[in-house]
Amino acid sequence: MAFLEFTRLDERSVIEYVKGVAALSSVLKLEDDGDAAEKLTVKEIGDGNLNFVFLVANSAHSLIVKQSLPYIRCIGESWPLTKDRAYFEAMALEEQGRITPNHVPQLYHFDPTMSLIAMRYLPPPHIILRKGLIAGIQYPLLARHIAHFMANTLFFTSLLFHSTLDHKRQVAKFCGNAALCKHTEQVVFSDPYQISQYNHWTSPYLDPDAEALRHDNLLKLEIALLKSKFSEQAQALIHGDLHTSSVMVTPESTQVIDPEFAFYGPMGYDIGAFLGNLMLAFFAQDGLVDQPHDRKAYKEWILETIEDTWNLFYKNFVALWNEHRNGDGEAYLPAVYNNPEVQLLAQKRYMTQLFHDSLGFGAAKMIRRIVGVAHVEDFESITDAVKRASSERKALNLAKMILKDRTNFQGIDQVVSAIRQF
Amino acid sequence: MAFLEFTRLDERSVIEYVKGVAALSSVLKLEDDGDAAEKLTVKEIGDGNLNFVFLVANSAHSLIVKQSLPYIRCIGESWPLTKDRAYFEAMALEEQGRITPNHVPQLYHFDPTMSLIAMRYLPPPHIILRKGLIAGIQYPLLARHIAHFMANTLFFTSLLFHSTLDHKRQVAKFCGNAALCKHTEQVVFSDPYQISQYNHWTSPYLDPDAEALRHDNLLKLEIALLKSKFSEQAQALIHGDLHTSSVMVTPESTQVIDPEFAFYGPMGYDIGAFLGNLMLAFFAQDGLVDQPHDRKAYKEWILETIEDTWNLFYKNFVALWNEHRNGDGEAYLPAVYNNPEVQLLAQKRYMTQLFHDSLGFGAAKMIRRIVGVAHVEDFESITDAVKRASSERKALNLAKMILKDRTNFQGIDQVVSAIRQF
Repeated sequence: MAFLEFTRLDERSVIEYVKGVAALSSVLKLEDDGDAAEKLTVKEIGDGNLNFVFLVANSAHSLIVKQSLPYIRCIGESWPLTKDRAYFEAMALEEQGRITPNHVPQLYHFDPTMSLIAMRYLPPPHIILRKGLIAGIQYPLLARHIAHFMANTLFFTSLLFHSTLDHKRQVAKFCGNAALCKHTEQVVFSDPYQISQYNHWTSPYLDPDAEALRHDNLLKLEIALLKSKFSEQAQALIHGDLHTSSVMVTPESTQVIDPEFAFYGPMGYDIGAFLGNLMLAFFAQDGLVDQPHDRKAYKEWILETIEDTWNLFYKNFVALWNEHRNGDGEAYLPAVYNNPEVQLLAQKRYMTQLFHDSLGFGAAKMIRRIVGVAHVEDFESITDAVKRASSERKALNLAKMILKDRTNFQGIDQVVSAIRQF
Repeated sequence: MAFLEFTRLDERSVIEYVKGVAALSSVLKLEDDGDAAEKLTVKEIGDGNLNFVFLVANSAHSLIVKQSLPYIRCIGESWPLTKDRAYFEAMALEEQGRITPNHVPQLYHFDPTMSLIAMRYLPPPHIILRKGLIAGIQYPLLARHIAHFMANTLFFTSLLFHSTLDHKRQVAKFCGNAALCKHTEQVVFSDPYQISQYNHWTSPYLDPDAEALRHDNLLKLEIALLKSKFSEQAQALIHGDLHTSSVMVTPESTQVIDPEFAFYGPMGYDIGAFLGNLMLAFFAQDGLVDQPHDRKAYKEWILETIEDTWNLFYKNFVALWNEHRNGDGEAYLPAVYNNPEVQLLAQKRYMTQLFHDSLGFGAAKMIRRIVGVAHVEDFESITDAVKRASSERKALNLAKMILKDRTNFQGIDQVVSAIRQF
């Protein structure tokens, strides 16, 4: 069955859709086995804020169909959002999958008319990382995998690797994702600092905290700087929404999904999103206590993961830089920067700037999850409002401090020390 | 006569071209007067580095035809350069002309096949500003006019005025001018700091100075930062080549021409180009002495013009910001930044950053004009090599100091004081 115009799929029509697309029938081996089509099951498994996600499977094979609607799922038609985002998600999945195939699910199909992508289903025991963090599960390879994903996707799409011509061509392509950039600008960099119908928080406990944000001039100055970077700096192809619900994990596997916000922006936005969401998970633990000793050890593991993620990212990123320093990248030409001393100074300065950007963006992401439109399950699953507010306030106060003082941090170990003090 | 494919025009064929294009015949009133076509004269008046420029006129009317060739005119076919630059020049002339019609010549016609634009001829006594500076002519309205041009073209194409959607649409359009951006990256930010076949300088006098640049690690670190901004920061539609040969003047009129390098880049690149070229003119005066007292007064006038240009730019730009603070611009939303205190702080920080960017880019532009591929007539017209080298060295040393210490300058008056000490 072909769809000649955009049609919202449901659990029945998605089967017809899959049967009608050769690339998908082939993944499910529908041609090879007459019964396979009859035995297809469908389950809507989207738990995100924006889209519908169908798992289509028979006993042997499976795939995911994800459809974007012209509005934000969790708000409704009153908050429209371009369904073109499926196009950018497809392009980003392809590009990031090419760069780090081990950490991105394979894209099978993109249908612009239907605003739909189909990709590999990540089978159990894969779960959303955020749920694993709430459950208190340790993922020993998480820091290493995410550091690999970030270092590679960011390095290979930056001017450290790209020629200017390639870079600007790619930047132009992703400029079309402006509606989603605008959405981020509003929900991350604006709404938490103004009165907005969509803002909410653990009331009445955090009422004074939310109000204080709207009167904190120094904080608002820092947010303006970060917003400018987000809006103007085409540094690399960023995922654009790299929180802990955009990562699926098992103890052995780490897969980054949902890059529909992808565009050429500041690298620190991705790194900060991930680190900031780990910090939220850390502060949520006290409200999630089931077996006190386990959670204490678990909090230590989260702190280690924060530290390892940045340190491994740093190591991987600089290794890629050294490896490709004689390539097409036009930021630091070998004939100008080829002596070890200036190379070292240049890398140190670059990485320090990136570290401070990451801290700033990470802090901004923490704040918006406490007083903005979209909250995190880490806190939302704390049923006792007093406990939840207490955890949230600690996270909020840390984030405010980091946002204002980020350039005073010399290394991630100092950040971890600061986290312990809240 | 129609040209179906790119053909390099000469003084004869340009007449046929003009006759064949209704928009141009009409400017020259060829239809109204049978003799007008017969009386057309053509003169090639291009003195730039890149293009051919024809003045086409009869006794009553005139226009300029400018054609881009697929290489750099002053180097030859060995340095290819896309002739698509005519398209970007046409788009920028149109946009800047819409914003500041009093300071941009009217665009009559653009022909993508022929890489050609036609525009209003700026009649005598208009001359290239650089030639006026060499001749020691004062232009009492220059600072005011250029400050107006820069403040308006930069403000109205920035996120202080644009919505995100408009901004990214425009950024994408001008990403196509990547070849010219790449050219700038090479000649401004790379070649002066490496051995390049195109570099030259007043040898042997400046040999040690040129070599010192290639070993100055701190300078190279600063240049890398500026190059990153130039390559990554889509802050506003910049002219991209706003030196004193891109400005035509009379005592009453100031016209900005040649925006073929236009793209969405850092505002400071335009401001710095203009200020840096005034500084070059200042240091050239000692080698151009004819009547000592006049040149002394003239140097003072140049310093005043530097100071007035920045101060008037600052004033105009902030006035535009205040005037449009409740508009579509998404950088500083009124509901977040509407109290006078935070507005003032935000503007001060924004303008300080812009000032330091401008100083850095201005210094980089000075350096490249002394040791890079394209020099300035201000110095080149000093026939005595010793005098020329002496002026150039002062300019170079000032530029190095500014590039390294730019963030220590609090205001343009301090820069003027520094200039006096070299």
